[in-house]
This record gives sequence, structure tokens and C-alpha cells, in this order.
Amino acid sequence: MEVRRKHADDLFKEFKEISITEFFRKNKAHLGYSGKLRSLTTIVHEITTNSLDACEEAGILPEIEIEIRRLGDEHYKFFARDNGPGIPIKHISDVFGKMLAGTKFHRNVQLRGQQGIGVAGVTLFSQITTGKPIRVRTSTGDGKVNDIKLMIDISKNKADIIEQSEYSEYWRGTELEGEIKGVKFNLSERSPFEYLRRSAIANPHAKITFIDPEGRKTIFERSSNDVPKPPKEIKPHPKGIEVDDILSMAKATKARRTNSFLVSEFSRMSNAKVKEIQEMVSFDLKKNPRRLTWAECEELVNAMNKIKFLAPPTDGLQPIDEEHIRESVLNILDPEFEVVLTRSPKVYSGGIPFQVEVAIAYGGHAGRNIGDGTRAEIMRFANRTPLLFDAGGCAITKAVNDIDWKRYGIKDFENSPITLFINLISTYVPYTSAGKQSIAHEREIVKEIKFALMDIGRKFQMFHSKKRRAIEKEARRQLLLKYSTELALGLAKLTEKDDEKILKELTALIEEKLKLAAELELLEEGEAEEEIPIEEEIEIEVK
Amino acid sequence: MEVRRKHADDLFKEFKEISITEFFRKNKAHLGYSGKLRSLTTIVHEITTNSLDACEEAGILPEIEIEIRRLGDEHYKFFARDNGPGIPIKHISDVFGKMLAGTKFHRNVQLRGQQGIGVAGVTLFSQITTGKPIRVRTSTGDGKVNDIKLMIDISKNKADIIEQSEYSEYWRGTELEGEIKGVKFNLSERSPFEYLRRSAIANPHAKITFIDPEGRKTIFERSSNDVPKPPKEIKPHPKGIEVDDILSMAKATKARRTNSFLVSEFSRMSNAKVKEIQEMVSFDLKKNPRRLTWAECEELVNAMNKIKFLAPPTDGLQPIDEEHIRESVLNILDPEFEVVLTRSPKVYSGGIPFQVEVAIAYGGHAGRNIGDGTRAEIMRFANRTPLLFDAGGCAITKAVNDIDWKRYGIKDFENSPITLFINLISTYVPYTSAGKQSIAHEREIVKEIKFALMDIGRKFQMFHSKKRRAIEKEARRQLLLKYSTELALGLAKLTEKDDEKILKELTALIEEKLKLAAELELLEEGEAEEEIPIEEEIEIEVK
Repeated sequence: MEVRRKHADDLFKEFKEISITEFFRKNKAHLGYSGKLRSLTTIVHEITTNSLDACEEAGILPEIEIEIRRLGDEHYKFFARDNGPGIPIKHISDVFGKMLAGTKFHRNVQLRGQQGIGVAGVTLFSQITTGKPIRVRTSTGDGKVNDIKLMIDISKNKADIIEQSEYSEYWRGTELEGEIKGVKFNLSERSPFEYLRRSAIANPHAKITFIDPEGRKTIFERSSNDVPKPPKEIKPHPKGIEVDDILSMAKATKARRTNSFLVSEFSRMSNAKVKEIQEMVSFDLKKNPRRLTWAECEELVNAMNKIKFLAPPTDGLQPIDEEHIRESVLNILDPEFEVVLTRSPKVYSGGIPFQVEVAIAYGGHAGRNIGDGTRAEIMRFANRTPLLFDAGGCAITKAVNDIDWKRYGIKDFENSPITLFINLISTYVPYTSAGKQSIAHEREIVKEIKFALMDIGRKFQMFHSKKRRAIEKEARRQLLLKYSTELALGLAKLTEKDDEKILKELTALIEEKLKLAAELELLEEGEAEEEIPIEEEIEIEVK
Repeated sequence: MEVRRKHADDLFKEFKEISITEFFRKNKAHLGYSGKLRSLTTIVHEITTNSLDACEEAGILPEIEIEIRRLGDEHYKFFARDNGPGIPIKHISDVFGKMLAGTKFHRNVQLRGQQGIGVAGVTLFSQITTGKPIRVRTSTGDGKVNDIKLMIDISKNKADIIEQSEYSEYWRGTELEGEIKGVKFNLSERSPFEYLRRSAIANPHAKITFIDPEGRKTIFERSSNDVPKPPKEIKPHPKGIEVDDILSMAKATKARRTNSFLVSEFSRMSNAKVKEIQEMVSFDLKKNPRRLTWAECEELVNAMNKIKFLAPPTDGLQPIDEEHIRESVLNILDPEFEVVLTRSPKVYSGGIPFQVEVAIAYGGHAGRNIGDGTRAEIMRFANRTPLLFDAGGCAITKAVNDIDWKRYGIKDFENSPITLFINLISTYVPYTSAGKQSIAHEREIVKEIKFALMDIGRKFQMFHSKKRRAIEKEARRQLLLKYSTELALGLAKLTEKDDEKILKELTALIEEKLKLAAELELLEEGEAEEEIPIEEEIEIEVK
């Protein structure tokens, strides 16, 4: 029985259009603003990544200071200062007051920020919780400082300048301050403090200062004075490209002919390759790229998929590097066992380069200390940015869980004194949402992290069996020595010789035998090592 | 050493503004377009929820047909038809060709769709993978059918009409067809088939037909002929409101005075309550709401937080209801044990009503059958929509994992023959991303699901101990009977009486004793049941 029917016209009366800012205002959780602690950490995250990106692009050794002050119940004020390049006056309102305005993601470059949403999100969150503007002071070092208070005009998605002044001062950088409510500070493992601690670990060239609401000042000093190479733009690789991408690149290019368009806009594309393509497509590559049709672009894609190209260049990717990871994360844990691995760059989705760095610390201070013991600690990073939330859905977590740790001698992974450090770097990190705390389960990425972990696992296994053997050996030695003391006493009585001397002879004999046995073991092990497969077949879940 | 410094002006040259469609084109994964199977399931999901919503709002018993045809390698065509209210001509291009245009989320009403992004996402995905428009045929039943082919003008976020015609035909509903590439169909537990199967389970009033690429037709017949009540708009509750919300409501209201604004726009607000508020704020509530300042709205919020209000009305929430769940999910599993629970409505974030429905089936065909055995199966739903992906980060998964199942007699939950059905309904489901497959960890929601599961757990425990006792009793009986046969034979020899007769007497004696014992147990159990606490304190992780 159908009752109370409504006509379509009535239903659509209710529809209205909204701006991107209204969308994210309603869906704050997509940006990471859910929960009192997480909201605060998200603010610190957005500000910090912005500063680090800006410094890196400008070739500046970053100095970042963040202070959180408590104003009342769930009411805080944040101050942030950096020594970055500063923001030119005409861009200030776009960066802080308009979403999707300052996007850099068309650039195919390894950066922390990609979307042009994050910092405007800080403005949005401040204003919807306190009704107050944020204040920006910035200078590019030209002797002029701009001091601006702004909010976002939510329905129009544009900045609403509340106050603006300019004055003279020689200084370079950006300062940001704002008030927020409905948030809470604490020192848990998902707090702004932990976020900054991990940021410092993954960015050893940065000096980060944090002043918490109790006034406690922590300085994470830089352990490296090398400015990382500025991130390099990598042109898209022919193998990863889709028809739609070519079409929109063709519309935007300055090249007058398709052949020069291909050579200039793709990596690993040479005139020789273009010749090969010409033989496989039905139209003349002298054609103006702006006039390419979908069908023609599809021919191009099909041709490029059949031709062999060099792997995409990966010199734009910037690993933290093994030495820095060892210095910043492993050494302080003083572990019994540690390994750092930087895998060689790989490609996912056909043409997007990425690279995986992993490190493990076992024993010592490794692991997470909770009330009743130690748990394994997994530190996730993407482009050197700590991922503290949404672990459940993340490709890194999936890879860690997919490993059969028992196979490598770790019986109860979850309850072991282990710290795992995993950093994924890429020109495009496939986050699952705008909050950027979780990496999508891209097949190649999960696989590559698993390979890295299995490699670590094998190394652990060797350490573990060596350790086990060492323990066994020591036990055997102790036992033999104990017996030989008894034996020496007995012999001394029988032969009426000096028991000390007999014991000394016996001990020397035992040590010699043990040494021989150890050498033999070492030889056997060398052979065994050869047999361990470098890269095992692993099963990946079909998506 | 700082080298290769770049000036801010150079850095910002690279910035450009993009549209919301460009944003989601680059970040397809946020909308659920990641992976070949998931992309296809996402398409089916968007189309189905749109049809179900439209039918429900219009008071129509839904009939939905979806067909997926294979055109080539990873190349498919989809057809969808519904008997919904149809789409008026002037709204077609907004619904399918513009993101954030057809949003309904300002309405505070329980619907599957909330964001005005989903169906336009289908258009976007079709065009970026095949370069082809989608085709919409729709009629509101007025004798005119509109037949439109459209794409999205990505940089402008608006529809690009490719072809358009109108003709006469008496018919009501919407048909959609489109081509997609880079997807793959299979019959796994995350496939379009499983999506539709679960949709049918959670929407027993819907008839859903699916034709798969092999031409196999499956009809999920409706098991109920009741049109669900159309979803009802629930005005915001004073307790859940934030200053920013009041301010924007005050700017949009037609009321001329703040007091009438409060009474007309909030639920549970009476003149008496307004009087109480007046006594607590520093300004006259006769003031024009359009002129309210942030500080004044803050006074209103503070006052409302101090006053007691009735809980928000929940008559807008539509549970599937116990009987329908039993019919559609439990009966077909033919389990040994089943429970269905519909919890009473609750409120999260201060004022957003929600409600949890759970069901469990144990034994029989319950659980997921994999090669080497049975695993627990968790069916997640939000507003009757199946959630097949992103389980890891979901509040439902968290609640299930937080339960100590051993406590309730389920020793190895993961490997038990269990199907858990959990449906969260709300006027606003806090999804973690635009892909809407995972619910954010809102404290109250996680807690409420846990309570529901603990309730189920206690019921299982009773069933389980009864079952255990029954097994024990039967074992005891068998043992006694075995002994009595021996005993009867022995006695017969000794007394030279008929062993059959002696056995009969002995058996009667045993059965009588056992019956007595059982009655005693039942009595004890009655007392024990009283002692089981109805709602235990549980610890929720601090966010």
C-alpha cells in the first residue's frame, strides 16, 4: 500500500547548493576535527606541515615554535611562528581564508600538504568554535610586515578581512594565532606533544619548540644541518597516465604539436619513443594537442602501454635516510637489536613513484609502555608527517598485520618490546580522506611495505637465533665450568696436585672446544643464509 | 648551511585555485573510487541509495533494477532503473552534473545520502575513465520523459549537456546508464552483488533486481509491503547546538524576534523555557535575531546548557525493526541461537539523535564460510546502507573489538560461527570521509553499540550455559544408563531375576532423579538471572 505520496517537485524544493567550506563545516570529521584532543592535534598538524613545506621549498632550515595556552574550560589559544619564506600580501587571504585556493597538487611533487584545505580548515575551526578571526603576521623579508585578522565567509568560500595593517620591520617568516574551543590538551600518545616529537624524529633538520598549557617548554633540537634538497617536480610517467589526464594536459600545454607536447610534458619520453608511438596511432602526431579527441588520446595511452619506458625518475623523492633515522629514533631507544632499511623507489597505479623506509628497534626502551607491560609501537609517517589517527584503515597497519611475525621468531608481536618506524614517501600519497591520517590500500604500496617488513623479519630472525644460540652456548659453558670445578677438586684429591692448576687446564680445554664449535656454527650459518629467499611470494588480497 | 633559497614570490607563482570537482577527481579515493572492485561497488552504492532515498521521501515502495554488462577488459556498462518520483527537468543537471548542488544535509533528517556529491561522483568517474557522458531518462509521471546525456565541466563544477530530448510517455521513475573502465566485477564479499544483497536485508520493503555480467538475474523480493514512514525533519535540540550554529540559524530565520526564533526553530523549546533563558541573558529576547552578536549567541548557548530540556524527539528515526530483521537476516541462517535488539534512541554530540539495532545469529549457517572453516561475520549498516569497506576505522568495528567476548562464553570470537548485524541510524551519521563507509569514533555512539553487544553477550551466555548444562546432563545420563545396564546384568545373575525388568526399574529411577536435578537447576538459574547487572560500567578510551 502506497500512501502519503509526494511529488518530485515538492521533494526538490528542499534542495540547495552549498560551498566547499559549508561542506567541510558540516563534515568537520573529514578534516580531522572530531574529538577534543584530535581537533587540537589537527590544528598543530596543519600549521607544522605548512611551515615545513614552505621552508623546504625555499631551502631554509626550519625553526618552528608552537605554543598552546589555556584560556578556560576547553578553551585554548595557539601561537605559531616559523622562519619560513613568508607569504606575499596578495596570497594571504587565499592561503588562510579560502579552501582549494592554494592547492599545489597539480605539481607532482613530494610535499606534506597537497590539497589547499588544511590551513583554511584551521581558520574555519577557530571561527566556528569561538567566532573569532585568526591573526596572521608575515613578511617575506623585504622590510614590510603584514598583520592581518581574517575569517572565512563560509557561504562564499572566501576570506573576510577584519583588520589589516602594514609596518616596517626586518624579519622573515610567518606567525599565526587563533582561539579555539571544544578542545582539550593532554600528553597522551595522540597529543600535539607526541605529534611534534614524531615530526622532529622524521625531520631531523628541523628545530621545533613546543610550549604546552602548563608553560613547559620542550625544544627538539635539530640533529642535522643539511637543508633537504628542495622537492623536485616529477613529470608524469607515460605508464601511469590515463586518457582523461592526457586530455586535460593537452588542453593546458603550450606545445603546438602533439609530438613536442609528449616530449616536453612526460618523463622518459624521447623523440625515438614518439616515433614508435607514431607508428601505432592512426593520426599524425603533428596535430595540435588542443584538438586531440578522447579516441586519439586513448590511442596514445594504448601505444604508450605497449612501449617500454625507463622507470620514472625518483630523484624527486626524499627519504629521511638511514643514518638520520638511526640517530633520531633508534639510538635513544638503546635497543638490543635494530635495523634500518630504505627500499629502492617503486611505482604504484602505473606511474606514481613512492618509496618506503622502515626501521625496527627491539628490546631496550623500545615499545609502548603501558601500565601492565610493554606493547609493540607502530610509528606511521607519510612524507615525513606523523600519522597518529585512523590507524585501523591505513595501508601501513594492514601490512604490519598481514605479516606472520611468528615465522620470524616474534611469538607475540602485539606484546613485544618493539618499535616499528615506517615512512611512506611519494609525490602523491593516496590518503583515504581529507584528514590525511590514513593511506588507502593501494596494492603496490601494501606489498612494498610488506616486503620491507619481511626483510626486517628475516634480519630479526638471524639476530634472534644467534641470541638464542649465544644463550645456549653460555649455559653450556657455565655448566661445563661448574662440572670442571667439581672435577678439578676431585682430581686434585686423587692426584694430590694443585686443584687451581687443574681447573685452569680444564677451563682452557673447554674454551677451546667451545670456540671451535662456534666457528663451525658460523660456517653453517653462512651457508644457511644463502638459502633464505630474498623476496618471497606473498599473497595480496584481491581488491 | 642554507643554499638555493627561493623567495616567497617564486613559490606562490605555482599556486592555483581548483573546483570541488577537480579536488575529488584528484582524490577519487575519498569518494570510494580506489581499487577495481571497490570502484564498481561504489557506483552501485551511489545509485541504489539515491533511489531508496527518493522512494522513501515520496512514499513509494521501491523497485530497483541494476544491470552490469561487460564490454571488454576492465570495461563495463551499468544500467539502473527505479520507480521513484523522477527528477524535475530543471534539477537534472544539478543532481548529476554538479557537486554540492543537491545537498539535503541542512535538513536534519534521516537519509542515506547527505552530501550532494555521490551521484555526481558517478558521472565524474564515468567520464574520467571513458570520456563518455552518462545518460539519464526520467519522468515525474506527468506524461513527459526527459532524456539527457551529460558530463561535468570539471573546472567549473557544472553540468555540460551533450544531448537532450523530451518525449511523451506515461511512466514514472529514473533510468541511468553509463560506461566505466578500470573496474572489475566478481562475486566476493565486497562486490555489487553482496552490496545489493545486504541492501535488500536492511530494506525489506524494497524489491531489488540485479543482473550480473554473466547475465544471471537475481531478484531480492520484498518481505514487507509497508512503505516506511517518510523521514521526518527533526529540529535541532538546544543541548546540541553550538554558537556558530545559532548565529547562522539566526541569520536565516524568518522570525522577527529572538524569542519567537527560539520557539520556532528548536525542538523542546517552549515559551516557559524562553522565559528561563531571558532571566539568564543580558539582552532583551525581543531583539531581532538577525542582529544577534557572537557574544549574545554564546549567552544563549550557556543559558540553554544550564536549563533542563526533554530529550530530542526521535520519531524521525526509522529502525528496520526487530521483526523485519528476524525475517530478512536471521531466519535464512537457521541458527541455533538468535537475538534481535533495538535500543532506545540516544543522543550524541549534545543533540543529534541516533539509535542502534543489533542482531546476532550463532550456529546453523551463521558466519562467513572460508576455505578452512567459519569466521565471524560482521555486517555493518548506517541508515540501512551496507558498509562494506574501511571496516578498520569504523566505530562499529571498534565496539565489536572492544567487547571481551570470552566473558560471555565465546572463546574465540573471530573463528566462531557468528553473524553480527549492526545498524546505526541517525539524522546525521558522522562518516570519516566522503566515501561514507566508516563511522567516526564518536564516544556516545561507540558506547551505545557496546551496550547493545554486551546485552547480546549476556543473552548468549545464558543460552550457552543452558546448552552446556544440557550437554553435561545428557553425558551424565548416558553414563548412568551404561552403568545401569551392567548393574542390571550383575543383579540379574545374583538374584536370578529378569535383567530386562531390573534395567527398566533402574532407568526409571535415574530419569526421575535427573528430572528433579533439572528442576532444581532451573530454580537456581531464575535467581542467578536477577543478579546479572543490566548495564555495566564500561571504559571508553579518551579521545
